[in-house]
Amino acid sequence: MQVRYKLWLEEDEHVFGEGLFELLQEVDRLGSINQAARSLKMSYRQAWGQVKKAEERLGQRLLITRVGGETGGGAELTPVGRRLVQRYQQFKREAAAAIEEAFQRCFS
Amino acid sequence: MQVRYKLWLEEDEHVFGEGLFELLQEVDRLGSINQAARSLKMSYRQAWGQVKKAEERLGQRLLITRVGGETGGGAELTPVGRRLVQRYQQFKREAAAAIEEAFQRCFS
Repeated sequence: MQVRYKLWLEEDEHVFGEGLFELLQEVDRLGSINQAARSLKMSYRQAWGQVKKAEERLGQRLLITRVGGETGGGAELTPVGRRLVQRYQQFKREAAAAIEEAFQRCFS
Repeated sequence: MQVRYKLWLEEDEHVFGEGLFELLQEVDRLGSINQAARSLKMSYRQAWGQVKKAEERLGQRLLITRVGGETGGGAELTPVGRRLVQRYQQFKREAAAAIEEAFQRCFS
């Protein structure tokens, strides 16, 4: 038997979870919402919608978009967005280890 | 911002989670699947179906039913069922505390 879990953050409503975490990581890696969406098999509209919803609920911008330039525009994380991704990653790592330990203690 | 989570156990497939945990606790308290189902606003068929599915996946009985007798039959947890409920309760308590601690460490 194994333990499974799902973690997310709320501010009255769902604010941030695995989906947005992966999306922001991909935007950071690829420098573009469009490419990030494609790499996660989402539409641009879905990806952008998720980001906008979280930004509204947090009252803070997570992405900056640039128009034009050599690469035809792109997107990058704001400092707030970057900090959220880093903290969530650390939180996820610690929580996962603690859940696994509790499971082993109780079930083996 | 607060942390939310969902925990469950799998053995290839979903075996045991919050729903079955509550159901078995109610059977233990009320001595009847029918009454337990009613207290959780489920049908008898749903409740019994969940138990049967988990029993099949675990390869072990979780409930014993008694037919007739003064109260017109009833149900109680097997030793395996009781141990599962106790271990899950302990696991849930420890995991919840650890998740909350990790969240506080990372987000405050």
